[in-house]
Amino acid sequence: MKFKFENLSPSQLIVLFYLIAVVISIALLSLPIALKPGVEWSFIDVVFTAVSAISVTGLAVVSTPDTFSIPGIIILMFILQFGGIGIMTLGTFFWLLFGKKIGLKERQLIKTDQNQSNLAGLVLLMKNILVIIIIIEIIGGTILGTYFLNYYPTWQEAYLQGFFASVSATTNAGFDITGESLIPFANDYFVQLINIILLTLGAIGFPVLIEVKELIKKKKPYRSSNFSLYTKLTTITFFLLMLFGTIAILLFDAHHFFKGKTWHESFFYAFFQSATTRNGGLATMDVSQFSEPTLLVLSLLMFVGASPSSVGGGVRTTTFAINLLYIFNLARGNKAVKVFKREIHQDDILKSMAIMNTAISICFISVILLKVTEPFTTLEIIFEVTSAFGTTGLSMGITPELSTIGKIIIILLMFIGRIGILSFIFIISKNGHEPNYHYPKERVIIG
Amino acid sequence: MKFKFENLSPSQLIVLFYLIAVVISIALLSLPIALKPGVEWSFIDVVFTAVSAISVTGLAVVSTPDTFSIPGIIILMFILQFGGIGIMTLGTFFWLLFGKKIGLKERQLIKTDQNQSNLAGLVLLMKNILVIIIIIEIIGGTILGTYFLNYYPTWQEAYLQGFFASVSATTNAGFDITGESLIPFANDYFVQLINIILLTLGAIGFPVLIEVKELIKKKKPYRSSNFSLYTKLTTITFFLLMLFGTIAILLFDAHHFFKGKTWHESFFYAFFQSATTRNGGLATMDVSQFSEPTLLVLSLLMFVGASPSSVGGGVRTTTFAINLLYIFNLARGNKAVKVFKREIHQDDILKSMAIMNTAISICFISVILLKVTEPFTTLEIIFEVTSAFGTTGLSMGITPELSTIGKIIIILLMFIGRIGILSFIFIISKNGHEPNYHYPKERVIIG
Ligand SMILES: [K+]
Ligand SMILES: [K+]
Repeated sequence: MKFKFENLSPSQLIVLFYLIAVVISIALLSLPIALKPGVEWSFIDVVFTAVSAISVTGLAVVSTPDTFSIPGIIILMFILQFGGIGIMTLGTFFWLLFGKKIGLKERQLIKTDQNQSNLAGLVLLMKNILVIIIIIEIIGGTILGTYFLNYYPTWQEAYLQGFFASVSATTNAGFDITGESLIPFANDYFVQLINIILLTLGAIGFPVLIEVKELIKKKKPYRSSNFSLYTKLTTITFFLLMLFGTIAILLFDAHHFFKGKTWHESFFYAFFQSATTRNGGLATMDVSQFSEPTLLVLSLLMFVGASPSSVGGGVRTTTFAINLLYIFNLARGNKAVKVFKREIHQDDILKSMAIMNTAISICFISVILLKVTEPFTTLEIIFEVTSAFGTTGLSMGITPELSTIGKIIIILLMFIGRIGILSFIFIISKNGHEPNYHYPKERVIIG
Repeated sequence: MKFKFENLSPSQLIVLFYLIAVVISIALLSLPIALKPGVEWSFIDVVFTAVSAISVTGLAVVSTPDTFSIPGIIILMFILQFGGIGIMTLGTFFWLLFGKKIGLKERQLIKTDQNQSNLAGLVLLMKNILVIIIIIEIIGGTILGTYFLNYYPTWQEAYLQGFFASVSATTNAGFDITGESLIPFANDYFVQLINIILLTLGAIGFPVLIEVKELIKKKKPYRSSNFSLYTKLTTITFFLLMLFGTIAILLFDAHHFFKGKTWHESFFYAFFQSATTRNGGLATMDVSQFSEPTLLVLSLLMFVGASPSSVGGGVRTTTFAINLLYIFNLARGNKAVKVFKREIHQDDILKSMAIMNTAISICFISVILLKVTEPFTTLEIIFEVTSAFGTTGLSMGITPELSTIGKIIIILLMFIGRIGILSFIFIISKNGHEPNYHYPKERVIIG
């Protein structure tokens, strides 16, 4: 059987393109010019770093500032950018750039990557995404870089730090070149707020940004009908998760990590660490200092992840919300799921629940396998697994000590988290149509 | 608003009846005659034991032989019997006994408890259940009692042990009056095999037993069409889980617990402990000696639990199977789930996935809460939670040391595991019909 490019399904193509992107990233990160003099690292660590960067996870087996030279850091920034905005977005951009017309096949590619439902206007959307993200990054980088003039000795250092931080926050990459994430800014609420805004803009979902932009541009008054159901659902879920996380952290660590801290210190530690689980992955503290219940809550939040069609991973906010809404409606005895004066499509309910179950299964199997290969506690492993699957990048500190098999498992989780459960399970989908025969339906006793 | 019995939904009635059964059990277990002289126990321990017995879980906060007198043990046997066969079965039996005619309302009650889909012939079914279970228990008790004449000094002791073991195994109660489960029989493969057969008969699902009985009675030749889809699906899942468990245990503990053991010792330890996670809860060893990956696999197996319409708990085998089948078919691009030349009903797919997600959420929230109140490791708590929810009753040993809040959480889990997720979530269901209006459907970007 001859391999034919055109025979691949959109999901299979997405996977293939991400694989190619990983290979290119591996090649770039292996360049001698990218490394500091004398640095030697194993191949598995190069692969790990490449996948972590392309998937904008931010889990690190090596210290970024100790490993990479200035050119290396700039290469890394480009990989984060490329991964964060999505290969398909950049792909579209290049197609536009070279005047190539976008055919239906290419549009479908984009559709799967960003999970868009309407094909129309997608090319325009992609152009919008790139422009918006780069504008956000430039503004963020300028603000942070200028502010960092107080922190760093030279203006070059300040702006390098500022722009890297802006790109890392907006793409939710979670990499840092401070060597210790945002811990140096644990008491600088300004830097934290800028970071929270940037990572929220990256993780809230591109269509949300587009809809808000349209509203501002056309100077329309705010009206509920100007927003799609997706935007309403994901935005409210996003902020409710942030709120829930903040309260849970404050509660569970009141007598633990927050002992002896002022109310505003406690609030900012809780708020920032809750916000960063949406997808950011930067932290203002060593998260392993939190109490164990808090760490489980953070795992849950990382597992849920960010909005679909954003830079984030996990099962995504809308999937999570539709699951909760369906269960509540089932319990109430309703067949239809009504929300914001709309009804959720049955297919979306089925898919959401399947995504949830598949994701949980993959994570649980990973925990069992890592328990075989690694000496760490169940909690540390659950935290690492959900962080990788959610492409969040927080860690209780075990990442650099993982065995090679452990690293491979985490690499796969980051990859699946980035391409999404649907694209992942569609890898095995048949081409062609479903066989057109039916068996009689028979009811089964369940649960 | 006046409370009206008839206004309750079947699910609400089931919950109410189970609550009443728990209250009666508490009263019976509090009788002075039930206890050994000098034994004093706290109220929470009485409640815990009552719920554990009614839900045939078998988690024990006190040692059964040290706490209960002979009359107490006999009372306990009756509670296990009552819980195992299901309040509705016994209820039907009493209705039949007193010549009362079964109305539709009562039939619906039974329907919900055993999750039967066809109302017809249900009364007959219930009679069948009771007869079959008691016959199984008498045969089991006679065999074990006679065999135990070699183990115990008096015939009274031997037959008390034999019949208690038979009832405990058949109802999958998991209680023991040896004081150390089946550890004394760790090298007695005969006792183990009898136990595995009894607990399988109890946990495989009553309709399976009925269908097999019909086949034998009518001397029909074996034909696939003589069995319902439910029977095929649950039986194959049941035995595949047993097989998977045995292999996983042998693999993960090859260099750990099985080090230096013969092949038949290893096999029987693995096989029995795998079989007991279906729902039995008896053990031939201290399970906490297993390696951590094995313990996570056991947790998973306990969470899945037994067949619906059996004495077991958990999400049930068919729920688990339908989830896997749906995900596989979704991945392949099929809309219909075809299995054994039948198609699964869409409603059953939706419900199965909702049950799975709800169960996982309840267990995960319980783990977080127990991490707040208890000093145990995440693994120990995951094991205890899945054991309670699956009404399995295995423990790594933390049950007696739980705090009062911890005991209450485990009590709730055993209760939910017994009544089943569907009955549990239907507690909040409205009476009356769904409001008859619709909103436009709108697609949402998911996962
Ligand atoms: K991240
Ligand atoms: K049990």
